[in-house]
Amino acid sequence: MQVERWDVFEVSVNGPRDGNPFTEQNIRGTFEGKNETVTVNGFYDGDGVYKVRFMPSFEGEYTYKTTGSFPEAEASGAFTVTPAGEGNHGPVRVAYTYHFAYEDGTPYYSVGTTCYVWPHQAEEVRQKTLQELSKGYFNKMRFCVFPKHYIHNFKDPVTFPYEGTPVDSSGLTEENFSYDSDFSGNSWDFTRFNPEHFRRVEQAILELRDRGIEADLIVMHPYDRWGFSDMGRQADDLYWKYCIARFSAYRNLWWSLANEYDLMKAKTLADWEHYADLLCQLDPYNHLRSVHNCEPFYDFTRPWITHCSMQRQDLYRHVEYTEDYRIRYGKPVVWDEIAYEGNIDMGWGNISGQELTRRFWEASLRGGYAGHGETYIDPEDDILWWSHGGQLHGDSPARIKFLHQILTETPGLGLKRGPGAFDEVVGIPDSKVFTDCYEIHYYGFGRPSFRDFIKNDGASYQVDVIDTWDMTVTDAGVHSGKFRVQLPGKEYIAVRLRRV
Amino acid sequence: MQVERWDVFEVSVNGPRDGNPFTEQNIRGTFEGKNETVTVNGFYDGDGVYKVRFMPSFEGEYTYKTTGSFPEAEASGAFTVTPAGEGNHGPVRVAYTYHFAYEDGTPYYSVGTTCYVWPHQAEEVRQKTLQELSKGYFNKMRFCVFPKHYIHNFKDPVTFPYEGTPVDSSGLTEENFSYDSDFSGNSWDFTRFNPEHFRRVEQAILELRDRGIEADLIVMHPYDRWGFSDMGRQADDLYWKYCIARFSAYRNLWWSLANEYDLMKAKTLADWEHYADLLCQLDPYNHLRSVHNCEPFYDFTRPWITHCSMQRQDLYRHVEYTEDYRIRYGKPVVWDEIAYEGNIDMGWGNISGQELTRRFWEASLRGGYAGHGETYIDPEDDILWWSHGGQLHGDSPARIKFLHQILTETPGLGLKRGPGAFDEVVGIPDSKVFTDCYEIHYYGFGRPSFRDFIKNDGASYQVDVIDTWDMTVTDAGVHSGKFRVQLPGKEYIAVRLRRV
Repeated sequence: MQVERWDVFEVSVNGPRDGNPFTEQNIRGTFEGKNETVTVNGFYDGDGVYKVRFMPSFEGEYTYKTTGSFPEAEASGAFTVTPAGEGNHGPVRVAYTYHFAYEDGTPYYSVGTTCYVWPHQAEEVRQKTLQELSKGYFNKMRFCVFPKHYIHNFKDPVTFPYEGTPVDSSGLTEENFSYDSDFSGNSWDFTRFNPEHFRRVEQAILELRDRGIEADLIVMHPYDRWGFSDMGRQADDLYWKYCIARFSAYRNLWWSLANEYDLMKAKTLADWEHYADLLCQLDPYNHLRSVHNCEPFYDFTRPWITHCSMQRQDLYRHVEYTEDYRIRYGKPVVWDEIAYEGNIDMGWGNISGQELTRRFWEASLRGGYAGHGETYIDPEDDILWWSHGGQLHGDSPARIKFLHQILTETPGLGLKRGPGAFDEVVGIPDSKVFTDCYEIHYYGFGRPSFRDFIKNDGASYQVDVIDTWDMTVTDAGVHSGKFRVQLPGKEYIAVRLRRV
Repeated sequence: MQVERWDVFEVSVNGPRDGNPFTEQNIRGTFEGKNETVTVNGFYDGDGVYKVRFMPSFEGEYTYKTTGSFPEAEASGAFTVTPAGEGNHGPVRVAYTYHFAYEDGTPYYSVGTTCYVWPHQAEEVRQKTLQELSKGYFNKMRFCVFPKHYIHNFKDPVTFPYEGTPVDSSGLTEENFSYDSDFSGNSWDFTRFNPEHFRRVEQAILELRDRGIEADLIVMHPYDRWGFSDMGRQADDLYWKYCIARFSAYRNLWWSLANEYDLMKAKTLADWEHYADLLCQLDPYNHLRSVHNCEPFYDFTRPWITHCSMQRQDLYRHVEYTEDYRIRYGKPVVWDEIAYEGNIDMGWGNISGQELTRRFWEASLRGGYAGHGETYIDPEDDILWWSHGGQLHGDSPARIKFLHQILTETPGLGLKRGPGAFDEVVGIPDSKVFTDCYEIHYYGFGRPSFRDFIKNDGASYQVDVIDTWDMTVTDAGVHSGKFRVQLPGKEYIAVRLRRV
């Protein structure tokens, strides 16, 4: 048996179907190679099938042994881990405090998007989502395990995570929408998962993986009419362990404990710390972990948090605080919600493609990362990318891809603000990468007709004028000493200097 | 003799020319009517002429008596103050804590501009400036008594404020520009004013007055190659007293002690407080008084300061702090510098007309006021509105005039933010005037396709959709209860509700 490094090695055995296999049975496996010995829990996948999944972090020969509460759980064997294939760089890790790299060292410049419940949509919508994702606009996606109840989200999901019967949703409208629901009308068995629901999530993770996209999985959220946000500690623990057992072996997984954790009134800080404990104990791969706010940030200094997953707290100044939060938290700053391109009534969902793209550039050139979302009204089907996926309608995705291309041309790992002289431009005063042979100056909504530069290091610099909206890179020649760069006097222009 | 209420009654006498009349002679006058007795200092206007100016605040019969250090200073007489003519509403005063009104009670909604040294330009440029000002875009202008030394400002002014010889400016370029000058090369007699220079300032004040524009006169500033920013206490006092004696009687005068006071390194806070003392003692009309910052705000809680004259401290969030500063200072908030429409290299001078107009609306609908400036590169003559006046090239002035029209339709005096329900829009959550029969909701860079409103007061509301950029007001019908207003899904839209 062979498996690629950082791919999933899965042991599958048959076992008892009677009683409640989810609570009454267990299975675990130990996987051993020259450089690691990893023990993980398996899970019941329905129909009498039990599975244990493992992601090998090294090449070479491995053995495994599974054991559990039923005789057939005893199994063992050996397999070979082959080199990672093309496009497989391993899990994403924090690199140089504020940035990310895949485990093989390849820099990872995060340009994310959000389709909260795309795995739970009809196949036709899912296929459209995948078509858009294949265009390479994004390399991270935030989405939820649980279905979503919210404006534009009244339809039932294709599957539910538990056995049982959902509340009747036929009378739901934007008029009577509320998410202070009492959850009556639902009838769930929180001890019996619906494996098909979780398979859909896994399929989504794999489909993202195959497109080079990290799966930023939101395990809990408040947009609920079914009671999944208030199941009690015992059911929560069962759920967390089930998710960890099923999903941890996927290399492109990130854990987002919750979206807008502060809106989940049934949860306390102690709950979040408890879920984090479970993750730290049971995910042997240490996938990236964070928790996303509505208003107050979670305390991102907590040691189990690998990066800041932020929603803006102010309508006007947000990504411009990137440097401040880098200093405050000493971790990568990922602006996962900074308003979406669209035209819905809500202020968080109706900014222009220009403005969203500007926010991406501001975040990126200050040494942080940004996330996209799209909320254009769809009068026919009420399909909005932000929740359902489907078709993209906006102008920003192509520009985000262009930004990513520019970022990949950065020497070192990611951009950060350099010391810089007084340079009172709109945009950032001065941005450098850690090597001083490369600079990008971004003027945001400023429209300079020229900018003067002084390079007193005796070196010559290749100067490019980057139109971040028209997606062009124009050669402005090689310069040294004091020189002037003519600019188009438009918004959203950057100047790049590369020492030659 | 007759003079209109709030116009200038001037007594002019001949007197000694020998010695130094500016320091060795004096003249003052007392003006008495039924409701007021006012004593003011006069000034020497050159060529043996001495003048005393008075602005009557009431109609009716007045007498006057002048006296001074020379026999001809003794004069007396009587005059009649007639009702104010059309367009004459008296000086602007603070009204209802945060707003302004003319002395006759007419609301004054400030929409300002800046042409720092327009009075000191060649007549051809001055005439172009006046043509633009006649179009009614603005009702306040900031400008300086002293000439200006700065990028785009290397030419000598038409006149200088003192007798003497200026430093040779022929070698000045942007390359060698500095305003840490040692002022050597100048030779001035700071005890001898050049009355012609001050007459040019007066002419400017009157030309503005005749166009309904307040003259926000900047008495000191740091942009200097002549030493006017560092003359010493004695010369400063002579200058302040001369300005007060010459200019106070103009009803449209506002005092701006300085532009970017904090860049004037030769001055201390004690100096500014001292100049303010002089103003409070010697300007009997209590014209509006403020002092404008570069970085730290002056302490606007000082009792002599009538309103906050602010320059933004942050590139991204500024007018959006209007409510905060209203609370902090308890005075009108006037954003005199929030970046200019233009395309120069500097970030403070290259935002779009759209963005500047947005800042005006944000400031106005939060109960503050904003100021315009324009800095488009002029390769031929280097004439930029911000400093010289001349021709306007931008898109914002017409929109600012449109905003002013909307503001004049406000019941009461100026807009302020109301309590408002949760309304997470980009722009302001909810803006009301003090009467609850009128609301304007502004969506700024948000692009809602519709907005829902709930009016549970049983009343009906006339709804208008205002396109603040296209300058249209579209009747959206009369509504009550819960209703939806369809919007164009564009930036810069406002909705106005008026109870009918």
